[in-house]
Amino acid sequence: MDTYLEIKNKAYEANMQLPELGLVLFTFGNVSVADHSKQVFAIKPSGVPYKDLSPQKMVIVDFEGNTLSGDLRPSSDTKTHAVLYKNWANIGAIVHTHSMYATAWAQTQLDIPIFGTTHADHITCDIPCAAPMSDDMIAGDYEYETGYQIINCLTQKGYSYQDVEMILVGNHAPFTWGATAHKAVYNSAVLENIAQMAYLTQQIRNDAPKLKEALIKKHFERKHGPLSYYGQ
Amino acid sequence: MDTYLEIKNKAYEANMQLPELGLVLFTFGNVSVADHSKQVFAIKPSGVPYKDLSPQKMVIVDFEGNTLSGDLRPSSDTKTHAVLYKNWANIGAIVHTHSMYATAWAQTQLDIPIFGTTHADHITCDIPCAAPMSDDMIAGDYEYETGYQIINCLTQKGYSYQDVEMILVGNHAPFTWGATAHKAVYNSAVLENIAQMAYLTQQIRNDAPKLKEALIKKHFERKHGPLSYYGQ
Amino acid sequence: MDTYLEIKNKAYEANMQLPELGLVLFTFGNVSVADHSKQVFAIKPSGVPYKDLSPQKMVIVDFEGNTLSGDLRPSSDTKTHAVLYKNWANIGAIVHTHSMYATAWAQTQLDIPIFGTTHADHITCDIPCAAPMSDDMIAGDYEYETGYQIINCLTQKGYSYQDVEMILVGNHAPFTWGATAHKAVYNSAVLENIAQMAYLTQQIRNDAPKLKEALIKKHFERKHGPLSYYGQ
Amino acid sequence: MDTYLEIKNKAYEANMQLPELGLVLFTFGNVSVADHSKQVFAIKPSGVPYKDLSPQKMVIVDFEGNTLSGDLRPSSDTKTHAVLYKNWANIGAIVHTHSMYATAWAQTQLDIPIFGTTHADHITCDIPCAAPMSDDMIAGDYEYETGYQIINCLTQKGYSYQDVEMILVGNHAPFTWGATAHKAVYNSAVLENIAQMAYLTQQIRNDAPKLKEALIKKHFERKHGPLSYYGQ
Repeated sequence: MDTYLEIKNKAYEANMQLPELGLVLFTFGNVSVADHSKQVFAIKPSGVPYKDLSPQKMVIVDFEGNTLSGDLRPSSDTKTHAVLYKNWANIGAIVHTHSMYATAWAQTQLDIPIFGTTHADHITCDIPCAAPMSDDMIAGDYEYETGYQIINCLTQKGYSYQDVEMILVGNHAPFTWGATAHKAVYNSAVLENIAQMAYLTQQIRNDAPKLKEALIKKHFERKHGPLSYYGQ
Repeated sequence: MDTYLEIKNKAYEANMQLPELGLVLFTFGNVSVADHSKQVFAIKPSGVPYKDLSPQKMVIVDFEGNTLSGDLRPSSDTKTHAVLYKNWANIGAIVHTHSMYATAWAQTQLDIPIFGTTHADHITCDIPCAAPMSDDMIAGDYEYETGYQIINCLTQKGYSYQDVEMILVGNHAPFTWGATAHKAVYNSAVLENIAQMAYLTQQIRNDAPKLKEALIKKHFERKHGPLSYYGQ
Repeated sequence: MDTYLEIKNKAYEANMQLPELGLVLFTFGNVSVADHSKQVFAIKPSGVPYKDLSPQKMVIVDFEGNTLSGDLRPSSDTKTHAVLYKNWANIGAIVHTHSMYATAWAQTQLDIPIFGTTHADHITCDIPCAAPMSDDMIAGDYEYETGYQIINCLTQKGYSYQDVEMILVGNHAPFTWGATAHKAVYNSAVLENIAQMAYLTQQIRNDAPKLKEALIKKHFERKHGPLSYYGQ
Repeated sequence: MDTYLEIKNKAYEANMQLPELGLVLFTFGNVSVADHSKQVFAIKPSGVPYKDLSPQKMVIVDFEGNTLSGDLRPSSDTKTHAVLYKNWANIGAIVHTHSMYATAWAQTQLDIPIFGTTHADHITCDIPCAAPMSDDMIAGDYEYETGYQIINCLTQKGYSYQDVEMILVGNHAPFTWGATAHKAVYNSAVLENIAQMAYLTQQIRNDAPKLKEALIKKHFERKHGPLSYYGQ
């Protein structure tokens, strides 16, 4: 019996959602799903078209980035996933895409301003954009450093990875995560939606004001925390 | 027999139109359908994916916002719907979405200018954007106050809710309504269409002139009033 | 036997292409197909959803705008079609839509500049935008005057309706035509395509130069005239 | 037995991918596939709708641009393909489209700046835009000259056609190529994706900085060369 069957199945299903949600062209994206009790995760093999994927093709990798099982090479972004799982005990899945609007924002190296309640329903601050790393780090263990680039960005801004489940990596593209595969994929779609809305908002009104604090607080609390009243 | 069966069916069908028309991502929208004779409305349950909806899952709420029947919690925007039904005797349905272009305009806090006949076919003024409410109102009974924010915006501008069946709630997103569920959903799709056209018009020509009065009058009267000659 | 069967079938099929090509929302568009030998045309009934159309529902109208047969009221734009057929002996079909990008350009009251060969493959000048008509004409026989507004715009610019098969009516939306229903619908889709490309071109480069004369000539002649070598 | 069967089949399949990938409207595009051992290529017939294509309808042309077999006239861009095959021994397929964003950039006559890793994953420089040719060349053997315009642009910039597999022809539209039909079509879709991202990046931030050298190098080497670790 395959001891990794559950995370392989979950990783497969989550990867297949990316093209359905319009978040990827060809193979430009990957999802991993972790089992923290075993310190491993299942991740998409590198460069394999979504239509050719199957649960069996998911690659099992440990939190140091070593491949434990699988016939195919794992995603080239695997070490970034490994670093995040190793440092963040409470995330169950990570999603990386090059979705159009979120990636365009990443290319500008700007945070996505919080302009409305669609944004505040999910996150109470601007979507952070991590600065490009130094040339030394790029030339070194690049994907490993990308993980630290993400962690350091949140740390410097004083954000918890459990409150802020999405980030832009400057000049590159977005990463999102969450307690479950469903939540991590959901966050990628929400980020793309927010990124497009913020783009349009600034195009229509260059000096559009950010959402005021009272509305940020209200909308976030509708969906999160002990007094939330959204959902079942 | 279910005395609310008719409005449950209508509310279910109208809710299912939102994803078909491309107006919602995930669960970001809701439709309600009222029975004014019973002073109740049927509304989407909160946070339930559209594919999992059924007429039986619609929640029955009275015009004070109290849930009368249903196994699920109603939409978090329920009190806004209740306030509008209580104050506007002649509306049969309300739609709330976070559709892309209308929401971007709402985030700018600007009215959508009337630039062409597509707009004038449906409404003779700019699409109003209600100003964000005060911090006290936000911290208070927020969804209830959102209803009054909508009503007050129309009142202050001297508009009738029967002439102006759509509004942007500043920093939030659009609400539309109508005599029937069909009309209310139709208005949401029209608003999104007008919002995108107005966006493009201003992008192409920053100082695009508004539609002149004679054309506004003509196009509206083609579709509305005793001398209309559009439709069957 | 129905003497108008052929144009009814053609008008039905051409109308059904509009939603397939993404050129219409709801009922915002109409196609007519003429039989010049009988001085009549078949046109979409007003306000009927595309999914409910059938060849039998097409309305037969003469070139004065009088309904000759049909159970339904013809499109509210019928008189515009009638004027064009009456004045232009060699057009077999007319299409009116409110397609997104062409309509946005119409709302700016600007011609669509000829920026590239996609444009020049079909038309050798800027896509003309007819100026809004006077208040008197609007208050008078509006749809009839819209036909003359189109004819006069071409005349003033010295264009033949056989060379220039598309126009924007200022503040309103596009009209296209052609020898056949196929060509007229094709022109509407091409216009929408060109309108979006020109929009993007100006957004990227505000002072983008127009296509030079030699390229305009070359590309048009590849597709048209005695020396054309495009198609079979 | 048809000695050209293999390239006909490949050309047919590659052509059919263009509408699936959303890269063409009507017949605005063509793919050819070459057999260098025979000095011939199979190309789409001119002006034939994609739904009416079949492998048997592909036209066989030699590297001088002479039709060798086929019942239909070849694409009007055939001589451009012939020139490229004759001069570039290692390309197996060429794709020409009028895809929306790449064509808009071509109409601006600007190179597409390298703004992010999505771009650098495929090409290490700005996407070059060949300048419009002289009036003499346009009036002469236009499609033949278009081939030289492409070759000369790469030569002048010092680029190899094996490193840079995509170009914009100024005022016209993109051409891409590759060792295989799959790669050439892939490049067209990637180019359209990059073109849209660069457009959005500049819209959001007018002075967006280009990707720094270290990141260009790193991302390209992840996918290409002896140390690549992307794919299987």
